[in-house]
Amino acid sequence: MTAPDLDTLRAAFAGRLITAPDDMAPFLTDWRGKWRGAAIAVAQPDSAADVGAVMAWCHQHGVPVVPQGGNTGLSGGATPDDSGRALLLSLVRLNKVRRIDASNNTMEVEAGVTLQQVQQAAAEAGRLFPLSLAAEGTCTIGGNLATNAGGVQVLRYGNARELCLGLEVATPEGELWNGLRGLRKDNTGYDLRDLFIGSEGTLGVITAAVLKLFPPPAAKVAAFVAVPSPEAAVALLQLAQAKLAASLTAFELISEVCIGLVLKHMPGSRRPLAEPSPWYVLMEVSDAHDEAHAQAAIEGVLEAALEEGHATDAAVSASLAQFEALWALRENISESQGAEGKTIKHDIALPISRIPEFIAATDAEIAAQFSGVRMVVFGHLGDGNLHYNVSPAEDRLGPVHAPAFVALEGPLNKLVHDAVAARGGSISAEHGLGVLRRDEAARYKSPVELRLQQAVKAALDPQGRMNPGKLLPPAG
Amino acid sequence: MTAPDLDTLRAAFAGRLITAPDDMAPFLTDWRGKWRGAAIAVAQPDSAADVGAVMAWCHQHGVPVVPQGGNTGLSGGATPDDSGRALLLSLVRLNKVRRIDASNNTMEVEAGVTLQQVQQAAAEAGRLFPLSLAAEGTCTIGGNLATNAGGVQVLRYGNARELCLGLEVATPEGELWNGLRGLRKDNTGYDLRDLFIGSEGTLGVITAAVLKLFPPPAAKVAAFVAVPSPEAAVALLQLAQAKLAASLTAFELISEVCIGLVLKHMPGSRRPLAEPSPWYVLMEVSDAHDEAHAQAAIEGVLEAALEEGHATDAAVSASLAQFEALWALRENISESQGAEGKTIKHDIALPISRIPEFIAATDAEIAAQFSGVRMVVFGHLGDGNLHYNVSPAEDRLGPVHAPAFVALEGPLNKLVHDAVAARGGSISAEHGLGVLRRDEAARYKSPVELRLQQAVKAALDPQGRMNPGKLLPPAG
Repeated sequence: MTAPDLDTLRAAFAGRLITAPDDMAPFLTDWRGKWRGAAIAVAQPDSAADVGAVMAWCHQHGVPVVPQGGNTGLSGGATPDDSGRALLLSLVRLNKVRRIDASNNTMEVEAGVTLQQVQQAAAEAGRLFPLSLAAEGTCTIGGNLATNAGGVQVLRYGNARELCLGLEVATPEGELWNGLRGLRKDNTGYDLRDLFIGSEGTLGVITAAVLKLFPPPAAKVAAFVAVPSPEAAVALLQLAQAKLAASLTAFELISEVCIGLVLKHMPGSRRPLAEPSPWYVLMEVSDAHDEAHAQAAIEGVLEAALEEGHATDAAVSASLAQFEALWALRENISESQGAEGKTIKHDIALPISRIPEFIAATDAEIAAQFSGVRMVVFGHLGDGNLHYNVSPAEDRLGPVHAPAFVALEGPLNKLVHDAVAARGGSISAEHGLGVLRRDEAARYKSPVELRLQQAVKAALDPQGRMNPGKLLPPAG
Repeated sequence: MTAPDLDTLRAAFAGRLITAPDDMAPFLTDWRGKWRGAAIAVAQPDSAADVGAVMAWCHQHGVPVVPQGGNTGLSGGATPDDSGRALLLSLVRLNKVRRIDASNNTMEVEAGVTLQQVQQAAAEAGRLFPLSLAAEGTCTIGGNLATNAGGVQVLRYGNARELCLGLEVATPEGELWNGLRGLRKDNTGYDLRDLFIGSEGTLGVITAAVLKLFPPPAAKVAAFVAVPSPEAAVALLQLAQAKLAASLTAFELISEVCIGLVLKHMPGSRRPLAEPSPWYVLMEVSDAHDEAHAQAAIEGVLEAALEEGHATDAAVSASLAQFEALWALRENISESQGAEGKTIKHDIALPISRIPEFIAATDAEIAAQFSGVRMVVFGHLGDGNLHYNVSPAEDRLGPVHAPAFVALEGPLNKLVHDAVAARGGSISAEHGLGVLRRDEAARYKSPVELRLQQAVKAALDPQGRMNPGKLLPPAG
């Protein structure tokens, strides 16, 4: 097959077409430089209609399409393969907030609006858009939906999936499906919306979405709680959910190892509690009344937890600065772990009830089978989502030890993911599959589930041109 | 094609096979007697494995399958057509609560467990399963999920869809897909769960589910509020959501006409407020603290609403008996409307912001085009879901006027549904499509949406044997 004439593509839509290798380069690798690919061109349409035009051109010429938002993914889902046959479709110029309907608590935004811009537009309308994650200044809402992003407020508000009421999608053939409904209830057929959400660009391209908004809380208070064990953290979670209901908006588990890394690498960070503890919980209350009401509520939980032995000490934020300092301890873990040397990461989910036993058993198995490693465990305990990470042991830091540590990645992944699968868990809680976890996920799925997934793919992308090689192993 | 030998089916599974016409009859009509059909037999398997065996037999013999739960649907989705070719697959003997994991806030139940049994099993484990609707004593959780049922607690907890974490499904070929995950986060492929939820048995048969549980509230308080208009009701909703956040668990709009019907037909019912008002709101607070805290919270909202003119009077429940009496006014509307004569019903959803204008404009249009009718309007305003119903005018009651009223159904449906579609609404908010709204829904959908829906159907049910004629018009 001869390469298609790009001049016909340039004429087909009003946006930008990038073909110079130097200009294309940033789009052809992920931000960590873990994956690299090639493309016939990078197209940056300005409108949904123009996305349709680009898609129609690709359909006509049999060109694969790799959609890309802010290019902040962790699983290689937005990097083309090295065949150089695909078009890289960048959505960042679809950057309009189309409308906000405050009385309906909805907003309609284009796919390329950054998550932070979405949050800001909601705030300007007196509303909250609660999705929040580390890359929010760069990642786009289209990418968040395509990967069903999670983050720190999922416990109360859900993943990206739960925050979306409607979608506009360009099909592989270049048609636009207008599913931009701002409705809480709609039982008129198959749930196409949730099929496109989380499909990582392998079924079509999300061009716009209707998002759910919420009244902003009157006050937020955080508590940093020393807990003796993950079992105690789960007990504290039960207690907090019973007493705080939906005002409990975050519940994060953090090991002492994590705090040690943050104190070492983040200047100005300080221990919030006098004594170290093997584990901590960072919990957050969002209150509709005021700060005093929020503090009373969280202190009521802590009193009961201290009495029952689920907690041994706690600090409650009494100002915005203290609130932010407590959250910074959690938010700086990833960067601090990175500053310490190479990392091996697992983004796993489990039934919450099984997490304590999982940590104990898997820690022990790793200690028995691997030497020179150190567990760096934290995550969204309220959602059953752990970042069950591994760093080199303190006496194995530095480049000389790095190759030996990196060689452990495959065997460690297998040990951890087998342990997750054995307990009914997920090997990708919030980062998606991309190419990173594609084959592993397929290995853990049943033949019937794989067949159903492939049937869906073949039905909506019969030519297999949408983000080829991502999410599912190629059929056949 | 000759009729398949039922003895081979009888031998294929351990449950019950009903073939005597009298015994089959109750399964071949809906509870209101609106639809009637025929079947080769009624199969009542006892286990998911046996559902698979029945499905495999049907696959082998090219027999269509009509799944049925409690047979309480309102859209004819569980009644076979009159060809007599289909097998009626009754799930009511799959009635086990398989397990409850209170620490994970989940329970695994079989499809035939009634909604009330699910609620009770959750309560016995100290948890809340919040889905609640009129038919809960008879309807099954499998049917609730297959139709994505709604009800009175959706504002806080979501539809059946939002209350389900995992499914077990028998495919049209008789394989069992085990997707029984008790996880809040799982980004490992296409969202098959949400594809089966709401698909009305046209893609496969739900045999079991993992459901989300919640800590039960410490106290519930209801307020019956007189509001001058639907605009005021929407303003009150904004206020209540800002001040009560997720502790606002229900927000129902009720017209004075509805209250008049309940007072007329339900012995013992009484007006909670001294003076009639054109509209009312029934709102409910579920509180994690106690009754006094709940009352203070709801009274804070009502004070502000009275001050701003969004409300003119209100009664707050001070006991369980008062709470139940207020709710009975809402729950008895449907039966009271039925007692008044024939009814024409519309189960619609709209952006909440557009509801006041919709009611005003559509009421006026109906008044201009139809005579002898009376609007009976109520519904879940917090979800944007109205039961925008029509009764004969008071001077047109009685059988002599009934045929003329019934003849209005088609033209009234069209007027109302056109008005809904023009405002971005849904013509089936929570009742599904079945056969009742199938063709209308197809008329309002775009060609690309219909094509996507049909592609999904063809992918998962290539022979078109699953609940044929429901949800989607036959392809081609």
